Amino acid sequence: MLTKAELQRLRSLRDKKIREALGLFVVEGEKVVGELLAAGFPFAEIYATPEWPGRKTHGVSADEMARASHFPTPSSVLAVGTIARTPLAPGALDRGLTLALDGVQDPGNVGTLLRIADWFALDRVVLSPDCADLFHQKTINASMGSFARVRTHTADLAAILGGVAATTPILGCDLVGETVHVLPALRDAVIVIGSEGRGLSPSVAARITRRVTIPRLGAAESLNAAVAAAIVCDNLRRGR
Amino acid sequence: MLTKAELQRLRSLRDKKIREALGLFVVEGEKVVGELLAAGFPFAEIYATPEWPGRKTHGVSADEMARASHFPTPSSVLAVGTIARTPLAPGALDRGLTLALDGVQDPGNVGTLLRIADWFALDRVVLSPDCADLFHQKTINASMGSFARVRTHTADLAAILGGVAATTPILGCDLVGETVHVLPALRDAVIVIGSEGRGLSPSVAARITRRVTIPRLGAAESLNAAVAAAIVCDNLRRGR
Repeated sequence: MLTKAELQRLRSLRDKKIREALGLFVVEGEKVVGELLAAGFPFAEIYATPEWPGRKTHGVSADEMARASHFPTPSSVLAVGTIARTPLAPGALDRGLTLALDGVQDPGNVGTLLRIADWFALDRVVLSPDCADLFHQKTINASMGSFARVRTHTADLAAILGGVAATTPILGCDLVGETVHVLPALRDAVIVIGSEGRGLSPSVAARITRRVTIPRLGAAESLNAAVAAAIVCDNLRRGR
Repeated sequence: MLTKAELQRLRSLRDKKIREALGLFVVEGEKVVGELLAAGFPFAEIYATPEWPGRKTHGVSADEMARASHFPTPSSVLAVGTIARTPLAPGALDRGLTLALDGVQDPGNVGTLLRIADWFALDRVVLSPDCADLFHQKTINASMGSFARVRTHTADLAAILGGVAATTPILGCDLVGETVHVLPALRDAVIVIGSEGRGLSPSVAARITRRVTIPRLGAAESLNAAVAAAIVCDNLRRGR
């Protein structure tokens, strides 16, 4: 049995400002909650109707779920997680492979990029503050569970890239540059992906030390951000 | 000045059944209409308010546009094109590179796949009848103009793949198979991409002659259909 205040709190987590103020986010649906639980995500609360076969902290009726849900067709489970933000340790980007997202605004694209980072075992994803919200249900859905596995940070990209060791290349994917096909299997690198519409912001573009391009044989003006990132990752991971 | 019947006809093209019955489709918005015009797409009709700087066949008022539009916030232009379907010539898949989509149901994914086919200069895209509608506004938007440049066909994939010459490999992207990194730069091949949820249908899977995989280093269960297709294309086009 949920109180009116509890229902109100769950519904209010649809709003990013309230998520930030409470330090909580919400995801709904058997698929996404199942994926995150399978990945070991430590949910703070799990509200579920009797139909949900998994772990729960609060049993609710279908009617209560309908009132708590953000969706016109509620599922059997709604889970609340804590928004944890880990600051980047100094020098963190010097080692391993980092995917840096500069203003990627579509939550579906951010989620797909997390999935790509997970597939290619990148060490971390760093998002500029103007990226789509990591804790938006659409981002988490599109990540297909990778949200729970990939290490993420939010940071001022231009500032953080300014501190990267000179021995760690900062790759920017562009329409001009050296072909990704000649990239060696780099152990340490930052791969910077720009926004869907505007590309890289000028202050971030100024930090790129190695401009790479995906050879184009046809007439499309560009590839989408996630597709470009995946091709760069596949080339970087080649021969490992 | 549009008659009530004309407005009704334009609005009705939102419905796939009516599009098919009339052999017409509609796209709205300065960006998409501009992209298709730039690619030389021969629109049958272009309705535009005085704000639209490009070619038009019918001048309309903002109020008429609001009534004809499918969107709550209408743009300055709405264009009508003819649905043209070219049958596949016998033996067409034996030569060149074909992307075959087996039940890709999201119009955004189909559009992104057209954009990838365009970027890598594939010779054609063949869609199974249960793919998302090529003439849906979302498909055309996501293609970023590639809709007008890529040769497309709709066909029963299992039947058409059954007739492909034995010398032309039919590649299926899967979680097991030979790594895409050892693929030679094939001149002739069919790349088959399965549906987002179900993968390849059994009758299409039976036609695959070469199963390829994208090496996975991390824990994500899969990559999305467009991302996988792009990585296969990049590997096939390497060294050309």
